[in-house]
Amino acid sequence: MTTVDTPGTPFALVDADRLDRNALRLRDHLHALGVPLRLHVKTAKSVEVADRVHAGGPITVSTLAEAEHFADAGYRDILYAVGIDPHKLPRVATLLRLGVTLTVLLDSLAQAEALTRFARDGDLRVPALVEIDCDGHRGGVAPTDPALVEIGRVLGDNLAGVLTHAGESYFARTPQALHHAAQHERDVAVTAAGTLRGAGLPCPIVSVGSTPTAHAATDLTGVTEVRAGNYVFFDLVMAGIGVCTTDDLALSVVVTVIGHRHDKNWILTDGGWMATSRDRGTQVQAVDQGYGLVTDAHGTLVPGLLMTGASQEHGILSTRDSQPVPDLPIGTRLRILPNHACATAAQHDRYHVVRGATVEATWSRLRGW
Amino acid sequence: MTTVDTPGTPFALVDADRLDRNALRLRDHLHALGVPLRLHVKTAKSVEVADRVHAGGPITVSTLAEAEHFADAGYRDILYAVGIDPHKLPRVATLLRLGVTLTVLLDSLAQAEALTRFARDGDLRVPALVEIDCDGHRGGVAPTDPALVEIGRVLGDNLAGVLTHAGESYFARTPQALHHAAQHERDVAVTAAGTLRGAGLPCPIVSVGSTPTAHAATDLTGVTEVRAGNYVFFDLVMAGIGVCTTDDLALSVVVTVIGHRHDKNWILTDGGWMATSRDRGTQVQAVDQGYGLVTDAHGTLVPGLLMTGASQEHGILSTRDSQPVPDLPIGTRLRILPNHACATAAQHDRYHVVRGATVEATWSRLRGW
Repeated sequence: MTTVDTPGTPFALVDADRLDRNALRLRDHLHALGVPLRLHVKTAKSVEVADRVHAGGPITVSTLAEAEHFADAGYRDILYAVGIDPHKLPRVATLLRLGVTLTVLLDSLAQAEALTRFARDGDLRVPALVEIDCDGHRGGVAPTDPALVEIGRVLGDNLAGVLTHAGESYFARTPQALHHAAQHERDVAVTAAGTLRGAGLPCPIVSVGSTPTAHAATDLTGVTEVRAGNYVFFDLVMAGIGVCTTDDLALSVVVTVIGHRHDKNWILTDGGWMATSRDRGTQVQAVDQGYGLVTDAHGTLVPGLLMTGASQEHGILSTRDSQPVPDLPIGTRLRILPNHACATAAQHDRYHVVRGATVEATWSRLRGW
Repeated sequence: MTTVDTPGTPFALVDADRLDRNALRLRDHLHALGVPLRLHVKTAKSVEVADRVHAGGPITVSTLAEAEHFADAGYRDILYAVGIDPHKLPRVATLLRLGVTLTVLLDSLAQAEALTRFARDGDLRVPALVEIDCDGHRGGVAPTDPALVEIGRVLGDNLAGVLTHAGESYFARTPQALHHAAQHERDVAVTAAGTLRGAGLPCPIVSVGSTPTAHAATDLTGVTEVRAGNYVFFDLVMAGIGVCTTDDLALSVVVTVIGHRHDKNWILTDGGWMATSRDRGTQVQAVDQGYGLVTDAHGTLVPGLLMTGASQEHGILSTRDSQPVPDLPIGTRLRILPNHACATAAQHDRYHVVRGATVEATWSRLRGW
C-alpha cells in the first residue's frame, strides 16, 4: 500500500475528501441559483480532476494546449478565456473542424476584424465572446461603450455573447465587498448583453465568474453560466478573504525536514520555491502567511509554524511570534498549504491523491502552451 | 527557416551569442585564478546547455532527478548540493553503483550517522561534503564549530571535504560588498578545511561559489572548485547588483500583444506569471524592474516600458514614468527580460535557441524531483 510516506519529497498532494466537498459545495450553490457551471481547468490542469468534479461538462481554459488536451479527453464545449492573438486562430480552427465548440474572447475591433476575416477565408464560424470590464482588473470594454456594438457588428454571426471576470474580488476584505463584487459582475454582464440586444444583435451567452464571486452570488438572473476553477483546491488567499477555511485546502506540498538552525530558530526543508512557487498572494492580505502554513504529514496544522523563506530547493520554517520552533527531527514529513493553488500546482507534473493516509491514485497534470 | 516569429507565444528564448559570451567570461576568469568550475545545472536544467558551456565537466545539481538525468547523458562527477534527506540515499546509491561519483551534502550529526550506517550496510562509500555557513543565508555549521570535526569523524572515509555558498551575495549593493563576499566565502571554506585537517581528518574538496562571488573573486588560494550556474543566462537581479549588464541577459520570454487599455496606459500580452514566474527579485533592489524589462522581438530594449502586472496568462506592460506606452498593435511580439533566470526558465519545458533572428535549435529542459 502506498502511503503519504512513500513518494519522494517534495510532491503535490491532493486530499480527495476535500476536493469532493469543495466540488459539491459549489455545485449545490449554483444549482440553487439555477445557473450552470463552466469549470475553469487552469488551476488543476488535470483531466482526472475535471472528470471527478464536472465530467464532460463545459469548461474554460487558459491556454490552447489545455483546449487540445481536454478535447482529446472528450470535452466538447470549451471557452478559451484569454484575449485571442490572431496568430493562434489556426489552432482554434483545427479544434473547430474536429467538432469541438471552442469559443474565443476578444475586446477590440482589430481582433474582431482579424477573426472575421479568418473565419470567412476558412468558411468557418469562430464563436467569440466580447470581454467586458467590470472592475478595471484587466482587459475588456465598458458595458455601455459604443465600441461593444461596433465589435459585435464586425463579428457578425461569430458573435456568441459577453464575458466578464471580477478579478478584483481576490482583493475583497469583507463578506459585503464579496457580495457586492458578485452582484456588480452580474449587473455589468447583463447590462452589456442588453447593449448588444438593444442594437439588434444576439447575445446567447452571458458568462461571469471567479471563485470568490461564484460563491458570493445570490442572484444571477440573466446570466447563462458561471466560471470558477480555483475552488477545487482553494488556497490561503481564498481563506484570507473568507471564501473557505484552511480546513478546505485540498492541495498541499509534502516536504521533508533536512536541517535545523537553532541560532536562527529555523527548520530547513527540501521544499523551496521550485515546489511551492514564488507566489506570495497573502502578502497584501490582513494576515501574511509567508510561503504557507505548515501541517504535519496527516494534515493537522502545526500551530504557529510557517514557511518564511525559500530558495530554489530549500524551505525555511519559523514561527510568527518567535516562539521556539517545535522539535521536528531530520526526516520528518510536513505539508505546506500554499498561498495560490494555481501557481503551486503549476510547479508539479502530477498529484498524489490521498484519502486518509493512503495514496489512492496519481493524477497527471498538463503544462505548456 | 524558423525565425523568432515562428513558435507560438509565450516561449522561452535563449540568445546563443550571449550564452557563449557569458560562458567564456567565467571560464577565462576562473582559468586566471587557477580553479576549476563545477557548473551548477539548476538554472538551465538542460544537457544541451551544459554540453555547450562545460561539456562532460564536473557539475552541481539541486535535485536527484537532475543527477539521474545528467548521469544518463554521460556526466560522471556530480555534487548534489542540498542537505541530504536520509530517505533519498537509496537513489544516491543507485548512481554510485553505476560508477557516477555522486557527492552529497550535510551539516548535522543525525545526517552523518544515517549516511555512515547506510554506507556500511550497503558496503559502499558515499562521498559527503560538510556544509559550512559563511553568511547566515541558509544551513551549515560555523568553520570553527567543534561539531564540524565531530561530523567529520562520524563520516569516516565518506568525508570528502567542505562546501560553502555565499547566498547573501545576491543582496550585495556595491562592487566592494561583492568582493568582500567572495573573499569571505573563500576564507570561511579554507578555515573549515583547516579545522578538519587540524584534527587529522582529510579535506580534499574545498568548494565555494555563487554567480556573484565567482565573478568577484580575485584570490581563491586553497579552494579546489567554484560553483556557479545562473551566469549562463544572467538576469535582472544579477544586472541590479552589477555582475552583468542587461545586454548580457541570454534568457527572455517572447510574448504577443493581445490588447490595450488606453484609459490605464496598459498594453496586455499573452505572457503572465505562468510564463515569467512570480519571481520579483528586483523588488528589494535599488531599481524595481517589475516582472521584467521589455525589448522588441529582436532584443532591443523598449525605453521606459516594463511588465508591471501578471495574472496567470496575462501580462500588463506600462511605463515607469507615466509616459504614454508606445503604439504596439495587437499581434506585436516582444521579449520580457526576467528578474530571476532560474525561476523563469523553470516555467518552460524547452528553449528556442536564437542567433540573430533565426531559431537554430530547440533544447529540452528537465523538471521534477
